[in-house]
Amino acid sequence: MNEHAGRGREFFTTRTVAEALAGFRPERRTATETVALAGALHRVPVAPVAAPHALPGFARSTVDGYAVRAADTYGVSDGLPGYLDVVGAVRMGAAPLPDVAVGPGGAVSMPTGGVLPPGADAVIMVEYTQEAMAGTIEVVRPVAPGDGVVRADEDAAPGAELVPAGRPLRAHDLGMLAAAGITRVAVHARPRVTVFSTGDEVVPPDTATLRPGQVRDATAVALAAMITQAGGEPQPGGIVPDDPAALEACLRAALGTSDMIVISAGSSVGARDETAAAVARLGPPGIWCHGLAIRPGKPTLLAECGGVPVIGLPGNPRSALVVFRLIGVALVRRVGGCTMPPAEPVVRARLGRDLASAAGRLDVVQVRVAEGLATPVFGLSALLSVLTAADGYVIVPEEATGLDAGTEIDVTLYC
Amino acid sequence: MNEHAGRGREFFTTRTVAEALAGFRPERRTATETVALAGALHRVPVAPVAAPHALPGFARSTVDGYAVRAADTYGVSDGLPGYLDVVGAVRMGAAPLPDVAVGPGGAVSMPTGGVLPPGADAVIMVEYTQEAMAGTIEVVRPVAPGDGVVRADEDAAPGAELVPAGRPLRAHDLGMLAAAGITRVAVHARPRVTVFSTGDEVVPPDTATLRPGQVRDATAVALAAMITQAGGEPQPGGIVPDDPAALEACLRAALGTSDMIVISAGSSVGARDETAAAVARLGPPGIWCHGLAIRPGKPTLLAECGGVPVIGLPGNPRSALVVFRLIGVALVRRVGGCTMPPAEPVVRARLGRDLASAAGRLDVVQVRVAEGLATPVFGLSALLSVLTAADGYVIVPEEATGLDAGTEIDVTLYC
Repeated sequence: MNEHAGRGREFFTTRTVAEALAGFRPERRTATETVALAGALHRVPVAPVAAPHALPGFARSTVDGYAVRAADTYGVSDGLPGYLDVVGAVRMGAAPLPDVAVGPGGAVSMPTGGVLPPGADAVIMVEYTQEAMAGTIEVVRPVAPGDGVVRADEDAAPGAELVPAGRPLRAHDLGMLAAAGITRVAVHARPRVTVFSTGDEVVPPDTATLRPGQVRDATAVALAAMITQAGGEPQPGGIVPDDPAALEACLRAALGTSDMIVISAGSSVGARDETAAAVARLGPPGIWCHGLAIRPGKPTLLAECGGVPVIGLPGNPRSALVVFRLIGVALVRRVGGCTMPPAEPVVRARLGRDLASAAGRLDVVQVRVAEGLATPVFGLSALLSVLTAADGYVIVPEEATGLDAGTEIDVTLYC
Repeated sequence: MNEHAGRGREFFTTRTVAEALAGFRPERRTATETVALAGALHRVPVAPVAAPHALPGFARSTVDGYAVRAADTYGVSDGLPGYLDVVGAVRMGAAPLPDVAVGPGGAVSMPTGGVLPPGADAVIMVEYTQEAMAGTIEVVRPVAPGDGVVRADEDAAPGAELVPAGRPLRAHDLGMLAAAGITRVAVHARPRVTVFSTGDEVVPPDTATLRPGQVRDATAVALAAMITQAGGEPQPGGIVPDDPAALEACLRAALGTSDMIVISAGSSVGARDETAAAVARLGPPGIWCHGLAIRPGKPTLLAECGGVPVIGLPGNPRSALVVFRLIGVALVRRVGGCTMPPAEPVVRARLGRDLASAAGRLDVVQVRVAEGLATPVFGLSALLSVLTAADGYVIVPEEATGLDAGTEIDVTLYC
């Protein structure tokens, strides 16, 4: 069954954020590309990566000391030391020399990280030994087999999963791959997300002097940054005038070169309607919802056209950025193959004052946080300063009709 | 006073992590460079950026409707509507035509975002009006002055601080700068952090077949990723053999091209001592501490040589990465001018089992987190898999002698 079936009836359907996150799930995924480890941070493996051989690959000392047979140390103590003959030394980065082996009563000098020589089953720390005479050490602590030793396959058995598919690579994941000799990794290509701005009032940010009624395009550069943070590759689509034919032509051209399209709509109702009409003509399955039960951000449009997810954002920059953070970032990650998104920073705080909300609508309230207190930053949804003054946001969920001052809440912090 | 005074006596001083974070504070800061907004995400402004003019710059409608004099609507209701003459219309992105002004009893048709025409002090939503006859609207709700309007300086007054110095730029900060027409911003250059690996056993990650005793360099690529995450620019210094003269020469050459130097030391005590000796000869003020009260990671060296901070990390990759995350990341941010570092993702969880620790030592325990339960991942500090198997880490602070199973703890999550 196509989840978009019946879209004709749903053209003006308003959905909740939860419904959108659960129900609007385009199938598109980016292709595979291979990248070097040095550029693989936060890239998303297309498949689990397995260890090609055991790691570290040889039994290895974890301490500076002497490789011994553990049985030779049983019962020794400060009062009753044991004595072992030092029959050789292991050098860092090299196999023990052919004649270096530990027989009964023998010991081999070991650096941390050295190869355990044949016959030994433990390494005793140098601190628990002292040279009794040339070629003989006194041992005052017993060791058990395996003490002071990393097994040859203790960091990874051959074939063990080093990193899973779908989880952005973390710094230490890269280290593990390097340890295994894997210097290139197959990852999802970054989703190409084309960003269009519409509205006759919108001019490029480098416009030095505004004419009355003009506003600079604040949304596109912020969206591009969020797309980058989500692992995508923003593609500037530019500013399209409020002309349905021009917008449709731009969108249609972008379908072939985009994994996702974002339209920051003009702020007027007319501009929004034109955006919706242009998207509706782009191709099946078409518009999934037109309106989200969220404040700010209600005039949001979600669509899938010819296999490309399309988001139409509200005209107010603040509303657009709030919606994109909740809905768009998740979509970029999904298209980019990320099934285990990284956690966002969240801090617990007490709410500084009452927040009213309507049941059935999700409210995103900007807050400042200081000393465990979250103070809402109020202001019109047209104001970007409400966002820049905030440290993060609080969600008043659909089922709540508000939150009381003093309630313990989670604040998602911006970074 | 030089905070490094008396370093000679402190050569072998072990410090706590808290002492290191509070006391080891090199003065070095990177220079200023100017970057375009499109590349400014997470860059650190060197100075606050002020609004060059008021924003949005004109009184602007926040709704689709009619610009009116609020007084003309007082007392109207569904039962007793008011009637206003429509004397013109405002077009998006343009000033009202010269003859469009709102006099007593007048109204001007407005799109959301349009310029408030002269004489009007409010905009009434179209929903609360209807056309009574051609050129006349019926109004059924009163508005107060300012309703439906953003003031010309409501988003920013001229000279208002748009972004502070020292805080990495967030997506919406870029939007705010774009709105103000600021398309380039003066930021701290990325700290150039040169990473050396030492140890005769260490070979490059692309070594296909290891000889017995050899290990691939797992640390450098992971450090480079963490340096990038902290806003730095990693510079690969390569693998230096366990040769004090060679190491000193490499370090000395790097002093002139680095804002910070990181040495991932060989794992043996000998290699560590050679690293310390080479660093000690690099220049004043020299070594600040040699040994941190942390597990894993005790054999950590902090120094400042000729104005360049130097970190000597333990030889075990896992220890090195744990220490760098706690100490190194903060240093990279500091050198890069970041005074307000972004929050890390943290989740509350119950500890799944008892953790023992020594008082006076900070323990970093890797954990998996599922359903609110943090399960420690145990294993030798030589094992990278302990890190890659973890979702994050728990800190057992210096003053604690352990944590009991069931304790509510904060887990810092990897990302």
